[in-house]
Amino acid sequence: MKILFLLGEEFEDLEFFYPYYRAMEEGHTPVVAWKEKGRLTGKHGYPIDADIAFRDVRPEEYDSLVIPGGKGPSHIRDDKNVKSIAKEFLESRKPVGAICHGPQILISAGVVKGKAMTSFISVKDELAGAGANYEDKAVVIDENLVTSRHPGDLPEFTNALLIQLRNIGKSINDSIELSE
Amino acid sequence: MKILFLLGEEFEDLEFFYPYYRAMEEGHTPVVAWKEKGRLTGKHGYPIDADIAFRDVRPEEYDSLVIPGGKGPSHIRDDKNVKSIAKEFLESRKPVGAICHGPQILISAGVVKGKAMTSFISVKDELAGAGANYEDKAVVIDENLVTSRHPGDLPEFTNALLIQLRNIGKSINDSIELSE
Repeated sequence: MKILFLLGEEFEDLEFFYPYYRAMEEGHTPVVAWKEKGRLTGKHGYPIDADIAFRDVRPEEYDSLVIPGGKGPSHIRDDKNVKSIAKEFLESRKPVGAICHGPQILISAGVVKGKAMTSFISVKDELAGAGANYEDKAVVIDENLVTSRHPGDLPEFTNALLIQLRNIGKSINDSIELSE
Repeated sequence: MKILFLLGEEFEDLEFFYPYYRAMEEGHTPVVAWKEKGRLTGKHGYPIDADIAFRDVRPEEYDSLVIPGGKGPSHIRDDKNVKSIAKEFLESRKPVGAICHGPQILISAGVVKGKAMTSFISVKDELAGAGANYEDKAVVIDENLVTSRHPGDLPEFTNALLIQLRNIGKSINDSIELSE
């Protein structure tokens, strides 16, 4: 399956690379989107080459969305393409993972009202102000939305996302079997 | 299962944190050893608190050993406890993973002669000089020894190690069934 990562400069390196490598390990295809194709750098100095610009992303081509934290989200949250991508994934019920400052993108996209969510502690009040129900837990799952607080939650965050992807896989296989 | 990580200051952050979090995700218990209990820092600035000092490690209490790269190995390769730990794991046929500069520890421990191995490119000549058979591949497996070249190999490196651990688990279960 294809997993889209939304990045901004000074992204939190582990919060990107852990699910990125993990997707590869699971046999999925990770795709990195940024404001342009080309190289950007995490806040700890790790470089990554973006595969595609936000304006060229067609959400219907992907199975899941991941939004790492760090300072990346603050750099890209006002981008209209970023907002429409996040909205489309969440509303089409595809698995969406956002960790640390990642939920800021979902606030800007206007899709958090009534959602059970967590985030980095400094984003808590902004989330509550936008109508989300904040919980201080390693991973909070509300339908297709998976959120976590910080890099230390990565094992639980990534595991929860991968379970959602496996369930999609099973549903697709079930549909194929039924139609045969 | 318990997985021991041998760290030195300026370890390669991703090469430690990816298998460390991955072990947690799999339900294993990672344990970090350093010259002392307490905080050390990766070359990209991530901190980690070591759980145990090298001198207090009893290899028989662990199921697997992981040696990340970066500058960490050069700081600890002459430590006699580090050398004896590495030797004991390798000779007792427990899964040993070493990535990037990690194989330097195994060279100092005197256990690489005749082994098929890889490493960061700059360690290639030292490995060959110590009698290892160097291969330029993402992951090289020689019995219980798993080696890789750099952070980009982490998905394949970690997957290969986890497969070895699952096989140990199966062998143990088979023995239990046979003895019942």
